[in-house]
Amino acid sequence: MFSPTGKKVGIVGATGAVGEEIVGCLEKRGFAVSELKLFASARSAGKVKETPMGEVTIQEFSLESARDCDFVFLAVGGDFAKEYAEKLTEGSGPIVIDNSSAWRMDPDVPLVVPEINLEACKGKKLIANPNCTTAIAIMALYPLHKEFGVKKCIVSTYQAASGAGAPGMNELLDETKKYVTTGEMPANKIFAHPLPLNVIPHIDVFQENLYTKEEMKVTWETRKILDVPDMAVSCTSVRIPTMRAHSEAVTIETEKPITTESARKVLEAAAGVTLVDDPEASKYPMPLTATGKYDVEVGRVRANDVFGEHGLDFFVCGDQLLRGAALNAVLIAEGLVASGVEADAVAA
Amino acid sequence: MFSPTGKKVGIVGATGAVGEEIVGCLEKRGFAVSELKLFASARSAGKVKETPMGEVTIQEFSLESARDCDFVFLAVGGDFAKEYAEKLTEGSGPIVIDNSSAWRMDPDVPLVVPEINLEACKGKKLIANPNCTTAIAIMALYPLHKEFGVKKCIVSTYQAASGAGAPGMNELLDETKKYVTTGEMPANKIFAHPLPLNVIPHIDVFQENLYTKEEMKVTWETRKILDVPDMAVSCTSVRIPTMRAHSEAVTIETEKPITTESARKVLEAAAGVTLVDDPEASKYPMPLTATGKYDVEVGRVRANDVFGEHGLDFFVCGDQLLRGAALNAVLIAEGLVASGVEADAVAA
Repeated sequence: MFSPTGKKVGIVGATGAVGEEIVGCLEKRGFAVSELKLFASARSAGKVKETPMGEVTIQEFSLESARDCDFVFLAVGGDFAKEYAEKLTEGSGPIVIDNSSAWRMDPDVPLVVPEINLEACKGKKLIANPNCTTAIAIMALYPLHKEFGVKKCIVSTYQAASGAGAPGMNELLDETKKYVTTGEMPANKIFAHPLPLNVIPHIDVFQENLYTKEEMKVTWETRKILDVPDMAVSCTSVRIPTMRAHSEAVTIETEKPITTESARKVLEAAAGVTLVDDPEASKYPMPLTATGKYDVEVGRVRANDVFGEHGLDFFVCGDQLLRGAALNAVLIAEGLVASGVEADAVAA
Repeated sequence: MFSPTGKKVGIVGATGAVGEEIVGCLEKRGFAVSELKLFASARSAGKVKETPMGEVTIQEFSLESARDCDFVFLAVGGDFAKEYAEKLTEGSGPIVIDNSSAWRMDPDVPLVVPEINLEACKGKKLIANPNCTTAIAIMALYPLHKEFGVKKCIVSTYQAASGAGAPGMNELLDETKKYVTTGEMPANKIFAHPLPLNVIPHIDVFQENLYTKEEMKVTWETRKILDVPDMAVSCTSVRIPTMRAHSEAVTIETEKPITTESARKVLEAAAGVTLVDDPEASKYPMPLTATGKYDVEVGRVRANDVFGEHGLDFFVCGDQLLRGAALNAVLIAEGLVASGVEADAVAA
């Protein structure tokens, strides 16, 4: 239900996979919304969308209408965000929470996981939401870093089709169906190669150092969010045929000695984390169980003696569309309202 | 075609996924076979099997019949191998190449990848074939170790259903088909959880140190094959919804400085390796391209500065049933015949 004392919220890219999840998160988190503006392409404009808060007519994006909000979530590409994010926030404009990579590494823009560094938002009206792979792993990395000091971090990812949005998910399902029912080889438009029954170690474009941009985002963004500019982080990003939860195998070397028990204790108490780590009962993080959950699942925690008494392995699995995008963005807005930082920013 | 001057070859587990591939590898490698004995369960006995060499009637395993061979390939479980492998080799019995894990870590049994340590077979009649994950990664690790000295090795795997044999492959296909055509949730008998559109970080049983046996096999077997008993190796083994090629993301720290260029040069010249590493052209190892190939594909080669000038990342993909099992076994037999080691062993 809309609440007259709530916030005016705009979502740009409202018909995309992330946009749809933002609406759901606002409702489920009980974020008070007085008016919801759903912006999409001209093709969708005029359509009436049922939301948990009531019916909303989709509108084509206009700067004027979007500026008449308290919060605007951008769930569109980096080019759009580059062009409009600052214009939106000018003067009396809304706080903008951008899901794209456009502003993440801008030194004037905070890159925020609310459980970790909400205070970085102070006095800022443009806030960046991290890359999904970073956002999921960092829920475990941050508490471990606080307690043991992470020196080195090596990540291998198992990334779902949802990272390429609804078209990616549709391509995986449709092409899988075609292949298993007709035997015809799967085709590809969204992914670089056919994804059904395949893995593709290539997400986003290759950089000069031969890592992909997706891999370097994990390095760059982890350093920025944890505020350790020289942390040694490397990643191999791999697309696999799953729908919407990313998994990651993580190995860390820590400053202080670390054990399975001490790490589990820290993870069990960590915000946004559910420890799913009961090997005897075949319980560990999986897309099957992590999908649709707000917390990331962390398990397969074990001392890794490649780094002597300073090594740990763990496996993390989180919903790419929720913790990796929509939920994190909504939690930022929620945190700003609760902490009064929003009022400061708007007054500033 | 059978060759009167060839060897008498027995395959135990001839109707399984690996057994079938052994027949194919013998033919394609031109291994001269005078007689082929296909052993399977009583249920299959009496059936006539078309092979590239001619028709063969499947027989139930008997020690007597199997001992009347020059080479016997065991493509069955560890319990069978524990019971029969030594009895087969006794006296004038055949050379036995065992695909199970039963004998791999026995100090008296050589664990062999023919391109690496064929000479370990000298004077031995029972030879162990490595675990598939180890066999695939080690094709790249060995040449890099020879040139640069591998100190630390961290592996994350993306393992296909074929690791659980034909029943595993059938379960993945059937349950995927059911799910994408009816929406009914996938079920599981072979795997610990449903595999379609899921990943399962659990292969083989958990050990006291919380690694799975599959993960520890990579550590134990890599050390034994490379003859570096204290090499620091850790692995995270993950089952994913692919059919028969395993992929692995590997990070190494080396004794000598290593660069992308120097590593690529070594890999390009390595036996059993095809360097597939042209990011600009979207070429890198994938199950889609590695399936059915004898060489393993290695790519995504790049300096990893987590280990300064001593770090390297790469991605490897190899056919689990071929390099990970049948091909390696046939290459051992081929190497023994060519080098005369077989004659020594039989004479010994």
